Amino acid sequence: MQISPEKTRIGFIGLGVMGHSMAGHILDSGYALCVHTRTRARADGLVKKGAVWMDSVRKLAANSDVIISIVGYPQDVAQIYLDADGILENAATGSVAIDMTTSDPALARKLAAQSREKGIQVLDAPVSGGDLGARNATLSIMVGGEEPVFTDMLPLFQVMGKNIVYQGPAGSGQHTKMANQIAIAAGMIGVCEALAYAKKAGLDPDTVLSSIGQGAAGSWSLNNLGPRMLKSDFAPGFYVKHFIKDMTIAADSARDLGLDTPGLTLAKTLYERLVDNGCENDGTQALFKLF
Amino acid sequence: MQISPEKTRIGFIGLGVMGHSMAGHILDSGYALCVHTRTRARADGLVKKGAVWMDSVRKLAANSDVIISIVGYPQDVAQIYLDADGILENAATGSVAIDMTTSDPALARKLAAQSREKGIQVLDAPVSGGDLGARNATLSIMVGGEEPVFTDMLPLFQVMGKNIVYQGPAGSGQHTKMANQIAIAAGMIGVCEALAYAKKAGLDPDTVLSSIGQGAAGSWSLNNLGPRMLKSDFAPGFYVKHFIKDMTIAADSARDLGLDTPGLTLAKTLYERLVDNGCENDGTQALFKLF
Repeated sequence: MQISPEKTRIGFIGLGVMGHSMAGHILDSGYALCVHTRTRARADGLVKKGAVWMDSVRKLAANSDVIISIVGYPQDVAQIYLDADGILENAATGSVAIDMTTSDPALARKLAAQSREKGIQVLDAPVSGGDLGARNATLSIMVGGEEPVFTDMLPLFQVMGKNIVYQGPAGSGQHTKMANQIAIAAGMIGVCEALAYAKKAGLDPDTVLSSIGQGAAGSWSLNNLGPRMLKSDFAPGFYVKHFIKDMTIAADSARDLGLDTPGLTLAKTLYERLVDNGCENDGTQALFKLF
Repeated sequence: MQISPEKTRIGFIGLGVMGHSMAGHILDSGYALCVHTRTRARADGLVKKGAVWMDSVRKLAANSDVIISIVGYPQDVAQIYLDADGILENAATGSVAIDMTTSDPALARKLAAQSREKGIQVLDAPVSGGDLGARNATLSIMVGGEEPVFTDMLPLFQVMGKNIVYQGPAGSGQHTKMANQIAIAAGMIGVCEALAYAKKAGLDPDTVLSSIGQGAAGSWSLNNLGPRMLKSDFAPGFYVKHFIKDMTIAADSARDLGLDTPGLTLAKTLYERLVDNGCENDGTQALFKLF
């Protein structure tokens, strides 16, 4: 499918913090856009700018050439794709569906297989870069599925992100995102322990950050979340509860692959302790509270 | 003490991979340099370029205005400073000693206290940036001790490094380096697990790196050691055995401060397992072998 703002109708499902910005970029690029999300009011701003509201996934799917979704949990993805009112039963033959939710690689493979029977192409294309990346259209997008379909959809990805990489067959985008979350998980423990140590040792932790942030200990987490930890700014860029969802998918997937991940296990345990303390709606930097 | 290449005699103890490059930069900057190290042959190149060999710490200390050391372990530092033939007994009143070994913060405080009684000033100034940072004079240097002494010695630090930060009273340089190593420790687990997951999931791990290296999972370790892991290049930039030394100091120090560091503990356990497999002289990226 050759896409262009002139002839391609885009349907967008899920207008959360991420989806709202991403759909906005698509609209701004001149595509005809219809939207659906659980809470109607979340669509108001986009509708004012020209998006068309659809009151069901069924209608949205039937009226779109490309259907993009970014919702909460794998069970939400399964629902919008597999229900009788969902994408697979209602999208036209030849349409493309792109799930950008961080979700289960096995589910992505299942959706790809079932959609093929319906003549629909599915890509799994989770993102990294958070609310800021979504707002600035600088998301990293990791894509799994048929490569020609990826190539066709590239102009659309470029409207939302910067570092857009084809990773392989269906599920590969999700697997890549899991690798991403696994690297972050144990890394966050290191960041918290290092800054907690600096404080306990009587150092000025901001000065410590200026020493260690640029060298071999440097990381996105240390340099971006470290300063928030030190200011006790635990406002969510990325929710603790969503990170736990991702770590759970990753841990299950690693177990299925026969891979031992003690760092991931430790991180998940610590984050679950954080939830026990009532912090599930904090940002992931709230892990610092435990130290 | 105002220092300058014209009037300041530098003594350098410890010509390992790091020290050899650092001493070379001092010599190249025009300072009179004398050197001592355990293995005489390690000094040959520098002596050819004009450095003067000293066959004991005693002689080196007695003939230097500023004495720099970067040796292996805290016990080596204690020996060159505290022995009857060592720095404190033999350096002239008014001289400055700078220990750049990654060593024990408590030892650094002890050396500072004892040197003060002798009229000698001591700084603890461990570095980060590895062999490459030493060679290119881009080391990060974290300094503890009296601030006016730090200010006096700044021109000398600038010959060896780039990101040079005064961190506070004696021991603060070492504490900062410990925070650095603590951040690296758990982070390395995340890097290994992420790349091992990518391989097990059938992805091309180099392509995965191109997706995850620049975003929220990005870190110096992932981007610099990740590619070496994937090529099974375990040659030492930074030795496993030295990292274990650092983690041991950090863990002891954290315990003394009453700080729980489960990520550091896990990393230390895994690296010790690596040593059990005979990998103590590999580079730290060899942790990947366990996954």
